[in-house]
Amino acid sequence: MSTATPSPTAGLAGVIAGQTSICSVEQGALIYRGFEIHDLAENASFEEVAHLLLVGHKANPSELASFKDELIANRALPPVVIDYLKTTASMFADNTTVPMDVLRTCVSILGNLDADSQDNSPEAELRKAKRLTAKIPTIIGHMQTVIDNKPLVAPETGGDAKLSHAANLLYLMTGEKPEDKLTHTMDVSLILYAEHDYNASTFASRVIAGTLSDMHGAVTGAIAALKGPLHGGANEAAMDMLKEILEHLDAGGTVQSFMDNAFTEKRKLMGFGHRVYKNGDHRAPILHALGKAMAQSRGEEFVRLFKVGEEVQQIMDDQKNIKPNVDFPCGMAYYTMGIPVPQYTPIFVASRITGWCAHIMEQHQNNRLIRPIAEYVGPPESKWNG
Amino acid sequence: MSTATPSPTAGLAGVIAGQTSICSVEQGALIYRGFEIHDLAENASFEEVAHLLLVGHKANPSELASFKDELIANRALPPVVIDYLKTTASMFADNTTVPMDVLRTCVSILGNLDADSQDNSPEAELRKAKRLTAKIPTIIGHMQTVIDNKPLVAPETGGDAKLSHAANLLYLMTGEKPEDKLTHTMDVSLILYAEHDYNASTFASRVIAGTLSDMHGAVTGAIAALKGPLHGGANEAAMDMLKEILEHLDAGGTVQSFMDNAFTEKRKLMGFGHRVYKNGDHRAPILHALGKAMAQSRGEEFVRLFKVGEEVQQIMDDQKNIKPNVDFPCGMAYYTMGIPVPQYTPIFVASRITGWCAHIMEQHQNNRLIRPIAEYVGPPESKWNG
Repeated sequence: MSTATPSPTAGLAGVIAGQTSICSVEQGALIYRGFEIHDLAENASFEEVAHLLLVGHKANPSELASFKDELIANRALPPVVIDYLKTTASMFADNTTVPMDVLRTCVSILGNLDADSQDNSPEAELRKAKRLTAKIPTIIGHMQTVIDNKPLVAPETGGDAKLSHAANLLYLMTGEKPEDKLTHTMDVSLILYAEHDYNASTFASRVIAGTLSDMHGAVTGAIAALKGPLHGGANEAAMDMLKEILEHLDAGGTVQSFMDNAFTEKRKLMGFGHRVYKNGDHRAPILHALGKAMAQSRGEEFVRLFKVGEEVQQIMDDQKNIKPNVDFPCGMAYYTMGIPVPQYTPIFVASRITGWCAHIMEQHQNNRLIRPIAEYVGPPESKWNG
Repeated sequence: MSTATPSPTAGLAGVIAGQTSICSVEQGALIYRGFEIHDLAENASFEEVAHLLLVGHKANPSELASFKDELIANRALPPVVIDYLKTTASMFADNTTVPMDVLRTCVSILGNLDADSQDNSPEAELRKAKRLTAKIPTIIGHMQTVIDNKPLVAPETGGDAKLSHAANLLYLMTGEKPEDKLTHTMDVSLILYAEHDYNASTFASRVIAGTLSDMHGAVTGAIAALKGPLHGGANEAAMDMLKEILEHLDAGGTVQSFMDNAFTEKRKLMGFGHRVYKNGDHRAPILHALGKAMAQSRGEEFVRLFKVGEEVQQIMDDQKNIKPNVDFPCGMAYYTMGIPVPQYTPIFVASRITGWCAHIMEQHQNNRLIRPIAEYVGPPESKWNG
């Protein structure tokens, strides 16, 4: 059924699949529409980055105020989605599902309800993109309260209109207004995750959009792609591995002995390496520094986590010459915030939705069907009744 | 935001994106695991083709009997999916959705409920593939009765165990056991649509699966991709165009005058041409002949439809040298069966689900992340507060 080794072209590594004005992933920089990621992380808010990606330019103050108002006004979920989320309590209890899969269903339902769902015009797609950006944190927040068997937080409004996008996401998940340090770290993580050119989920969304299908469908497929541990799922997998290391330490082992075992078993270590970046991921040090600073105020447990994480990084660098990608510090940062691990990749969606929608709009504005060919390596021809 | 013309690599036309043992799309033949499409259309049933694609070889009589039994046993839908389908009555009434989008949501819900949903082993994936193949016709059938405001047909069993896959699909949609000619034409159409190597929806499913995401997620994305009029949606678009031509004739026009107008307006004519086939689609004449024969017994209206279709084909061939693809006769055949146009692409899903699942399994058994790169054509770097 399968071949022994993937063909050289499998994975399209290094293959230019098209152009984009949205993002440049370079060895020396990550650029969103002309602005470098360190500059954005330091000086912009997630709402400003979302406007940059979706509308195409840096918002002036009045554009930014309208954009924020639109996001706030669109936070609440339709009753059909809330009803479905309540139904999932039994699915989570039965372990037949995970948050990423429920988020995928909820976005698909939103498509079934959206008055613009069949309209691929730039104006309709921008409206849909803003609604999706506004509503995804609400889906994540309500889902977590369903899992926790607690009442939904502000389901009529989808949160507190006085809170920023990042703060409201944390509020919806917990019912508590977050400290400024948590909000800031969440905001920066959303900026860092927002866009990354033709990564697998964005590429999936462009393949779907390229048939002239609709934005909700393309986003549904992108969520499915982001879930995988070789993509967005890596932030959950990285934290799961760190938890294993902490248990190994509690049982008397060392970080070095854990890593030696992992190397001997040829285990894939999550949160390290990147298909495109050869000398490290620019985003990782930004989030590491913020998360580490936040850990100081959150308690000894979290300070220790970052110390262990640094030791893992040092060993990977010394022995394998592989650097962490953004998913590694992200796992530690979200853990330090108290977020349940299975929500790390859904939060990645709350950010990347902006990049996906920008790419879907770009694909539709200059469309070509994305349809490669395959090399046939199956059985030779024979007769059915031969 | 977009560039003037797509870059030469946009669309990956002619680019080999990997290998497959499942299907060979050639200028002179279409091969499923070594068997040519004319041979399969003449000598195999859809159930046999589904076994060939999913299990990997031609079933012997006892394998085929078990395979059919498994499909029949898995036809019924879980109550959560039935409840959602009932909810969609108001969405169809409000025109916020179409059957392809509801099918996408229902498959995503099935994933949330499937006990194997997080298991990517070959055994679990084969189980999931059979369940999806069994249940998709039931989703389509129940959806149509919801749209028609009629009671669901046999919701406890998902149909009549004595009926074949093709016959049961028609039964679920209408509540009536279909004539043999309809069943046979439907069965052959399902065989013809089952698989086509790295077409856009299958490629989307492989991009999603390539992150090590799950089968239901990959299928959800594939449904979204198939919907587009440049892909599976073409069978609906082709029939919509034929209806327009019939109205043009009723208003005193001719097929030639309709086509002349279309050529002048540079309108894209649906159901013609193909990214890979340069000298015509092998599948089209098979379905055309069957549909035309069926039309004889269905009445003058349908005989006329095929005559008009043949005139359209002749003009396209004479004036543009472009041949019909399978979506063109498919539209006429499904119309002749009395199937509502918006269900043509969902029925395509009921067939292609077998090809998608075979590709998802093949991808997972020999995985490599599918992640191309992009050429940046956006603004040069500037400072956020510059």
